[in-house]
Amino acid sequence: MMEKYTKLIEQIRIRKPLVHHITNYVTANDCANITLAIGASPIMADAQREASDIARIASAVVLNMGTLNERTIPSMIKAGKAAGEAGVPIIFDPVGVGASRLRNETANLVLEEVRIGVLCGNISEVRFLSGRQSKTKGVDASEHDIQNPENAVLIAKSLAAQLDCVVAVTGAVDVVTDGKRSICIENGHIMLSNLTGTGCMCSSLIGSFCGAVPNMLLEATVAALLSMGIAGEIAHTEAGQQGNGSFRTALHDAVSRMDSDTLMRRAKLYEA
Amino acid sequence: MMEKYTKLIEQIRIRKPLVHHITNYVTANDCANITLAIGASPIMADAQREASDIARIASAVVLNMGTLNERTIPSMIKAGKAAGEAGVPIIFDPVGVGASRLRNETANLVLEEVRIGVLCGNISEVRFLSGRQSKTKGVDASEHDIQNPENAVLIAKSLAAQLDCVVAVTGAVDVVTDGKRSICIENGHIMLSNLTGTGCMCSSLIGSFCGAVPNMLLEATVAALLSMGIAGEIAHTEAGQQGNGSFRTALHDAVSRMDSDTLMRRAKLYEA
Amino acid sequence: MMEKYTKLIEQIRIRKPLVHHITNYVTANDCANITLAIGASPIMADAQREASDIARIASAVVLNMGTLNERTIPSMIKAGKAAGEAGVPIIFDPVGVGASRLRNETANLVLEEVRIGVLCGNISEVRFLSGRQSKTKGVDASEHDIQNPENAVLIAKSLAAQLDCVVAVTGAVDVVTDGKRSICIENGHIMLSNLTGTGCMCSSLIGSFCGAVPNMLLEATVAALLSMGIAGEIAHTEAGQQGNGSFRTALHDAVSRMDSDTLMRRAKLYEA
Repeated sequence: MMEKYTKLIEQIRIRKPLVHHITNYVTANDCANITLAIGASPIMADAQREASDIARIASAVVLNMGTLNERTIPSMIKAGKAAGEAGVPIIFDPVGVGASRLRNETANLVLEEVRIGVLCGNISEVRFLSGRQSKTKGVDASEHDIQNPENAVLIAKSLAAQLDCVVAVTGAVDVVTDGKRSICIENGHIMLSNLTGTGCMCSSLIGSFCGAVPNMLLEATVAALLSMGIAGEIAHTEAGQQGNGSFRTALHDAVSRMDSDTLMRRAKLYEA
Repeated sequence: MMEKYTKLIEQIRIRKPLVHHITNYVTANDCANITLAIGASPIMADAQREASDIARIASAVVLNMGTLNERTIPSMIKAGKAAGEAGVPIIFDPVGVGASRLRNETANLVLEEVRIGVLCGNISEVRFLSGRQSKTKGVDASEHDIQNPENAVLIAKSLAAQLDCVVAVTGAVDVVTDGKRSICIENGHIMLSNLTGTGCMCSSLIGSFCGAVPNMLLEATVAALLSMGIAGEIAHTEAGQQGNGSFRTALHDAVSRMDSDTLMRRAKLYEA
Repeated sequence: MMEKYTKLIEQIRIRKPLVHHITNYVTANDCANITLAIGASPIMADAQREASDIARIASAVVLNMGTLNERTIPSMIKAGKAAGEAGVPIIFDPVGVGASRLRNETANLVLEEVRIGVLCGNISEVRFLSGRQSKTKGVDASEHDIQNPENAVLIAKSLAAQLDCVVAVTGAVDVVTDGKRSICIENGHIMLSNLTGTGCMCSSLIGSFCGAVPNMLLEATVAALLSMGIAGEIAHTEAGQQGNGSFRTALHDAVSRMDSDTLMRRAKLYEA
């Protein structure tokens, strides 16, 4: 049963999907390198005049709001529409939604204009979006909600049903759901939250897996988060004591060495 | 007496200040990671439509001119004004001022429109700004000025008095002054100048400390430069022989492991 | 005979040329750090209002299309024209040309408006540009062409003659030609293609060498690609087993420790 997730990494190495990113300048380098490390091929292109050209030749498109601006928002929409028409899966990472009106409006715009395949965010972002018809709820959610995987499953399922897509919530326990089936992943390490870009890199890995097996978005997303979580555990063992810099290097090492056997042996997941 | 600086790092770990950066795309990743390594929380957001929203919820705002452009200059002014109204301390890093008319005009604009808490630059930048009423002087300053900490103190004090803020000059000996008290820091290592972004990372650390103790900008700035200088020494010992890549990794390691005891034990500073 | 290439690295360390980059936000940090590692000084500045000011004071200008956009394309032209008038050598890296109409049009614009000193790309990019009068040929070139250094020499020589500049093709075997003399470099390691930015870093190294010896563009370009290739071999020996993260760190280490003796001892090149 686990193999349907863990075997997918081999498809990336065989197919080398081209993953188009419209992303932020803070973690773009990490995203490009993690995409290469897992075996896919990244292309970052956010000009309005080429966003749809590139999206059409890509195997997956990752839209990340990290440093969104007036110039790149229309590019996201153009890339998203072109990808949608071409049947290319779209991963949306609504970084920081809830923190400014611009981010809230942009997330809503993307969700209205673009047919998302996988939405990936932390619990605050997913909670905010799941409550966008009633924004107060999102803002008022308690600390208890954040730590509780059962609650994360409920929130993620609700959003997945609303948007008719796969929703991934990253955290101490990751949750992946298509609204019907929900998988919880217990792999990972707290040091991942001490590095910038680990959330963005999850979205790049999801793009890499979805690009390889575009008809298996739920399984692809589980495999991507397993890869990141297990790489985090390995990196902690190898270099956690030394500090954040060495941990980061070891994380990229571990992703580049990841294979289906390691995933199989170390995966800790259950259906919720 | 030293403890008033070295204890401040504990306040960052307790308060986890949110540090809003409007910065360059060359070193943004380093700045985000060093902010996390010292225990604070970075947010990079430079869209004009959200700059003031984010600045208002931040504990400190860092404005860095590294790759300034027509789109981000108005964002710096908006963020700076919003932060000023909300009592959020503002750190200004006038990267490359003196190298182009655009940089000179932008630095002047920021200094006129925004109430800076800490200005941080290298000696060329600080010298240029201190002589902005008489620009020739700045340009004509000799190599001797650059190497001489006593001269750096005089230039920094003059600029601090002009701007009524804390001025930090990074170099072989760092100088921090509010125009009255001046502290010289002898920690650091020449290899720091062989990496891009060590100046920008100093500004991020200053933002992290100032965000934690906004009523102690002078002390916070000293603590930030101590942290960077001592981390540079540790990184050199651990990895300097191997080269620039390993030194960089070790620098991030050392900042993430930094604590008040290490600062206390290794600090080399004196009042000028 | 080899010394005319390998000795040039000493000129970088003596002259510390300022290398102006208008480049992409994915690999800008790598480019700045590799420029420092080889002994030159990077400046990234892409605002339209300062592009020509900075280009005029630089020793070399690197134009890289990686994440080109509506704002930076005019900056490239301005910087290129100012550099041309000032006799500053210009390195052009047409990243991704062939992948979108915007990239094709921009590459053509740069080649028409700017006097390029060195064009550096992979075989797909160089092939595309060499066939721009007859685009079909470029698109139809076979896999066999790509792997065959003799073919790469022919394509590069043709483009060098068309543009009257040095053309460098990076790949398993690198080719450098001014249309008359052609040098093939067999150094390098396949792991270099698993990291983002190794092509961009080659352009930064070419800029560093050309900035140091602007009258020897062919030799400077050979020396730059030798440095990268040999650093890749050293990095593989030191850290290749560990994975992509450690390889990257070791690559920066090796460039920062590179010297003329190492280049002399390890260079594998021949005239084609």
